Amino acid sequence: MLIAKVIGTVVATRKNSNLIGSKFMIVETLPVMGETQRLVAVDQAGAGIEDLVLVALGSAARMQSGSENSSTDAAIVGIIDNPEEIFIK
Amino acid sequence: MLIAKVIGTVVATRKNSNLIGSKFMIVETLPVMGETQRLVAVDQAGAGIEDLVLVALGSAARMQSGSENSSTDAAIVGIIDNPEEIFIK
Amino acid sequence: MLIAKVIGTVVATRKNSNLIGSKFMIVETLPVMGETQRLVAVDQAGAGIEDLVLVALGSAARMQSGSENSSTDAAIVGIIDNPEEIFIK
Amino acid sequence: MLIAKVIGTVVATRKNSNLIGSKFMIVETLPVMGETQRLVAVDQAGAGIEDLVLVALGSAARMQSGSENSSTDAAIVGIIDNPEEIFIK
Amino acid sequence: MLIAKVIGTVVATRKNSNLIGSKFMIVETLPVMGETQRLVAVDQAGAGIEDLVLVALGSAARMQSGSENSSTDAAIVGIIDNPEEIFIK
Repeated sequence: MLIAKVIGTVVATRKNSNLIGSKFMIVETLPVMGETQRLVAVDQAGAGIEDLVLVALGSAARMQSGSENSSTDAAIVGIIDNPEEIFIK
Repeated sequence: MLIAKVIGTVVATRKNSNLIGSKFMIVETLPVMGETQRLVAVDQAGAGIEDLVLVALGSAARMQSGSENSSTDAAIVGIIDNPEEIFIK
Repeated sequence: MLIAKVIGTVVATRKNSNLIGSKFMIVETLPVMGETQRLVAVDQAGAGIEDLVLVALGSAARMQSGSENSSTDAAIVGIIDNPEEIFIK
Repeated sequence: MLIAKVIGTVVATRKNSNLIGSKFMIVETLPVMGETQRLVAVDQAGAGIEDLVLVALGSAARMQSGSENSSTDAAIVGIIDNPEEIFIK
Repeated sequence: MLIAKVIGTVVATRKNSNLIGSKFMIVETLPVMGETQRLVAVDQAGAGIEDLVLVALGSAARMQSGSENSSTDAAIVGIIDNPEEIFIK
């Protein structure tokens, strides 16, 4: 998974029917994880703007109950309470 | 998913039988998402040239009903109405 | 998918039994698609040297009938007749 | 797989239910493997800080018994006893 | 697939039970394929040090009979007899 910050949202009115009800969040990986990258992830953990989150890519984004047939390749699967909880030796 | 703009099309007369009827769009990721990249995605959302779209990669491109056995690794799964709908804090 | 040119072939006498009969083509992505990359793809569309092709990666390379259990992560799934058919706005 | 060193941990109180009980480790690939990258992997092998480990990505991270439905795309699947066991000609 | 050279081995005594008996090879992609990268692949083709091999990534690494539930994301699936068999126009 990637550690990222939720920095935005995007709305797509027309979309695959299996994405109806999905909340699209724009996330940006933390510099501490290496070169930053941005992508759109479906929220599965109740995240909000500026939350630090765990983002799972690929088929891992469809493991959550109810998302098995979702046309998504990225999901927010966990929320980190604050930066201090990231321990790096 | 990636946020990208539809910039072109490509036609392949000879192709896997499971791709017959697929519309191949060339998409380019938006600069706001990081280094731009171009790829070919199958349209599942009715996109047109210059549309801003959500592109799903990998097996997520085969979640849409009817595409389960398609030889594709990329699909347009949603259409963003206009750039203003992309909110970045 | 990637748009690539078939630039070579490679022969592997010893290989997984599920790859017997596969034709390994070396493909190079077109500069118009971004940084060029080379990889080995199994031909599923009858491609030849210098053909412009669509290359699918990951599990998409195993959607074609008969390839479901093949140890491949890349396949040529379509052939573009000529460069003029690639329309980029 | 990647060869990486466990350099940290991260705690996510709120997360997908299929991740409850998972131990999130921050790993960094060894320079000998190329450009270093950091990511978060679920520990499946009993790893600790500073251990050298094998990290599997994608659906391979859900092959271990009990992890089949886990929302993870990365797992520590093996532990290397010491750097001397890495033989490079 | 990637064309790579087997350059080393690594031993992991503690590992997922589905990896017991697997032979971990360190492979390095050939310069002719682009920027070199190193990774660890499970040998499925009987490769040895300095062999040129085809490496499959992702779920393709688990197509070989007996490897279906293996925690690996990379496998050596074929052996190229010598560099001269790599034809590039």
